[in-house]
Amino acid sequence: MKIVLIGASGDVGRAVLQDLSQDGRHEVIRVGRSQGDYQADIASDDSVAALFEKTGPVDAIIVTAGNVILAPIEKMTAADFATGLQDKLLGQVRVALIGQHSLNDRGSITLTSGIAADEPIAQGAHATTSNAAIEGFVRAAACDFSRGIRINAVSPTVLTESIERFGPFFPGYDSVPGARVAMAYRRSIEGVQTGRVYRVGH
Amino acid sequence: MKIVLIGASGDVGRAVLQDLSQDGRHEVIRVGRSQGDYQADIASDDSVAALFEKTGPVDAIIVTAGNVILAPIEKMTAADFATGLQDKLLGQVRVALIGQHSLNDRGSITLTSGIAADEPIAQGAHATTSNAAIEGFVRAAACDFSRGIRINAVSPTVLTESIERFGPFFPGYDSVPGARVAMAYRRSIEGVQTGRVYRVGH
Repeated sequence: MKIVLIGASGDVGRAVLQDLSQDGRHEVIRVGRSQGDYQADIASDDSVAALFEKTGPVDAIIVTAGNVILAPIEKMTAADFATGLQDKLLGQVRVALIGQHSLNDRGSITLTSGIAADEPIAQGAHATTSNAAIEGFVRAAACDFSRGIRINAVSPTVLTESIERFGPFFPGYDSVPGARVAMAYRRSIEGVQTGRVYRVGH
Repeated sequence: MKIVLIGASGDVGRAVLQDLSQDGRHEVIRVGRSQGDYQADIASDDSVAALFEKTGPVDAIIVTAGNVILAPIEKMTAADFATGLQDKLLGQVRVALIGQHSLNDRGSITLTSGIAADEPIAQGAHATTSNAAIEGFVRAAACDFSRGIRINAVSPTVLTESIERFGPFFPGYDSVPGARVAMAYRRSIEGVQTGRVYRVGH
């Protein structure tokens, strides 16, 4: 399959790239904000459209990019919240809405939510909102696509590779190796299911 | 209790108003886009801030306002989607984020999602996303508030009063009377729970 991987240089993206590259069955196009085979800013319609003009038709789109903001609810403004939605939630939805038109029949889209969708963390109102929203989008879009297009999400717990940075936000949470998380992306793109959220390490 | 009800002239809002007014225990301030005791546009920070300056401190905030967009996924643009998020999702979150500072200790916020959060409908990717996001916000904000502030959501199925307008979007769904839905709002504001989604008629 020809696969576009957006967020290829992040902890999740690197693990997905390694997994999908190991048996030579897939051509993976690596996309990052400033690295990779192509660069794209998922907060920009024009940038995402330009990316798919360059890639041409593909069989699978994976997005492992998108940041959430962490802030105490009592100090969070609506403007901060709206800005935060532009990145992870709207960034991933934008890739799906624009990218669908470059998908071959029976192609797939795999987005990334996170354990905070189900398990709120400190200062995490925006994180839970964005991740729950991505899962809602996947659930509904799956019912609406035609041409056999599928869409799923992977919701990992904190990665072992990310534990130094994010561990303090997840006290008492076990981590999972990126290689284990990557398997869920493979399940999504090589499998037949749609509208699923694959929880890993919850 | 002194209660601000935003969306007081809608089908859900009218039922909530009637329920909360019936025993004379509450003072309900009715707010609408163009009707009610005060007018406010929940898509505007300034308008929502001005509303709470006028009301002064309150014991409960209820939002039954907010529209979702319905469109086939294949014709939906990221710009449409972003515009849609401004209304129901960001509108309700905006009221919560600004209104929290006008809540008395142990006050409550009650938002409104909808059955499409769990049960996708045709052309409903935006509806499911917005409703799932509101439920995520409630789940996480509940863990983050101090001063005993509580936050819940009510997720009604289609109302009997709304069946002529929305019935075609909900084939095979039973409707519930507004009076039944209103009970869930009362449970939220007079009860002790927080971070809950009260599903009515699912």
